[in-house]
Amino acid sequence: MSHLDPHGTRVVLAHGGGGQLTESLIQDAVLPRLANPLLDPLDDSALLPTDGPVAFTTDSYVVQPLEFPGGDIGRLAVCGTVNDLAVCGARPGWLSLGLIIEEGLELDILRRILSSVASTAEEAGVHVVTGDTKVVARGQADGLYINTAGVGALRPGITLRADRCRPGDAILINGSIADHGMAVMLQREGGSQIESDLESDVAPLGDLVEALLEAVPETRFLRDATRGGLAGVAADLAAHSGYRVELDQESIPVRPATEYAADMLGFDPLTVANEGKVVAVVPGDDAERAVAVLRDHERGREAAVIGRIADERDGLCELLTYVGGRRVVQKPYGEDLPRIC
Amino acid sequence: MSHLDPHGTRVVLAHGGGGQLTESLIQDAVLPRLANPLLDPLDDSALLPTDGPVAFTTDSYVVQPLEFPGGDIGRLAVCGTVNDLAVCGARPGWLSLGLIIEEGLELDILRRILSSVASTAEEAGVHVVTGDTKVVARGQADGLYINTAGVGALRPGITLRADRCRPGDAILINGSIADHGMAVMLQREGGSQIESDLESDVAPLGDLVEALLEAVPETRFLRDATRGGLAGVAADLAAHSGYRVELDQESIPVRPATEYAADMLGFDPLTVANEGKVVAVVPGDDAERAVAVLRDHERGREAAVIGRIADERDGLCELLTYVGGRRVVQKPYGEDLPRIC
Repeated sequence: MSHLDPHGTRVVLAHGGGGQLTESLIQDAVLPRLANPLLDPLDDSALLPTDGPVAFTTDSYVVQPLEFPGGDIGRLAVCGTVNDLAVCGARPGWLSLGLIIEEGLELDILRRILSSVASTAEEAGVHVVTGDTKVVARGQADGLYINTAGVGALRPGITLRADRCRPGDAILINGSIADHGMAVMLQREGGSQIESDLESDVAPLGDLVEALLEAVPETRFLRDATRGGLAGVAADLAAHSGYRVELDQESIPVRPATEYAADMLGFDPLTVANEGKVVAVVPGDDAERAVAVLRDHERGREAAVIGRIADERDGLCELLTYVGGRRVVQKPYGEDLPRIC
Repeated sequence: MSHLDPHGTRVVLAHGGGGQLTESLIQDAVLPRLANPLLDPLDDSALLPTDGPVAFTTDSYVVQPLEFPGGDIGRLAVCGTVNDLAVCGARPGWLSLGLIIEEGLELDILRRILSSVASTAEEAGVHVVTGDTKVVARGQADGLYINTAGVGALRPGITLRADRCRPGDAILINGSIADHGMAVMLQREGGSQIESDLESDVAPLGDLVEALLEAVPETRFLRDATRGGLAGVAADLAAHSGYRVELDQESIPVRPATEYAADMLGFDPLTVANEGKVVAVVPGDDAERAVAVLRDHERGREAAVIGRIADERDGLCELLTYVGGRRVVQKPYGEDLPRIC
């Protein structure tokens, strides 16, 4: 192991050079976990057996800490990209994996995170088929950044767009909000000092979305509520549909521990990131069936109707509060929670 | 511009929050340069009108400095991904763009680099269709890292693989080697103190590859010689074909200024990165036609036959030197040139 650091336990700059050392890192850390017939040739590109239109998406992940209650940056990267494909009506199929590693990262951490990428990809039914590894010097990154891009075949006959929403449509979510953001923040701010069983909700939603679209092909719009939280999605939905969006505060699931953490740290759960929550708009008549289908799924047990498209063409989002008041919900301005995903 | 820094000239952490500020950065810096019908909806995924198998690739770019003679990180990111698609036999079509920005980056630099992404994409005939922006604090990146992934439709009837090579096949390159790596190193080491007209060769090669594949559909193998240089490609070609690869040192184009810089800084041009060079293997009978086609193209004026597949099943690469000697060419070990791409 002399080609590593003196103890062979950390990533060194030379692991990123594209030479024998890069190859050994891939053989040691990547292939044992992610091997599959499309990745194994390690060519410059993977060849995907698609036969119709595809969806294509990307996200970079810079979450800190790299490992947090309920997940880690690897699981996050797979789920984020899988979910972006799913909410566009695609079947998530293939992922790329770009690693930017800070010199000195413990190889054991890298191996754990790649194992998590592998198990999450299996859970989501996707394959990592192409990738890239760069190493930068100490102080030029923060442990590890991951970029995933994804490709998925589009389902024929499904069109999901905010401008398909109509007054009377119901707005649903598949469970409690703000768990990811608050779990990461608690871990970061308090470390192990704060007693909490709060866990990130990070999960792949391809199956759940598929079940919904099969049961309710007339679904108008889907969006995963990540950075910017439910507030961001609802404000965008109002702006892009042109109609008023009404959310019922008492219908929005929030776990007590999450609400407590948000209160304590001064956050509004509406604006806090989720990584396993999808907002769906369906015709009002389909709402009951949609909730039943979501609740039938492991990731949707607490699914609920949380609002509606109102018959006002003002493009605003309003929250009907517990006490019967109304307040305008805006897309968060900046960065309440840096490095949350 | 009060939502930026006090002078509105630098990226701040809040630009990465996924809220209104992220949107304003995208409206200000990204869309004026990259707008196209597939990107404009700014949905989570772009919908690509493919109708058959596609190639899929990714690379992250961490080059330093961000701007160098002959190019910048934006041009590099587009060309690297376009070229990875081209050498797999695909028509480069669509790119993703993931930005990881260090807080404090000057907005003018970001705008220049995005303009370069745009002009290079236009030159290459591709569109940026989906993207993502993250901002990390000072000291957690080095100005800007870019990830690009790419999708391209596969050409029917073209199969490019090292194991299709046969004894007697000719090995070609489309021009001089080592220009990218030495231009970046000179800029980094000497700044403006060293007089040099050395420029990176960074260029999109989709057109050139298309011309070659049309003229010589029997082309066996293509690979762009980036990190690891010509040595890396030739050593891989030998290992994966199983045959001996012979390179003729006197046939390999190297510009005098590049050779001088490499000598001065102690590098072997064979191992230095290129960003606009493709190594091609064609049947021996097609070699003359292939060279003519490459020379007919702006990016192939100095194309040459630089070696052959020999009738030895030892999987080694040998360089036949100027003085008639032979030396084994190995894949570079580690990182001669950190952060070169």
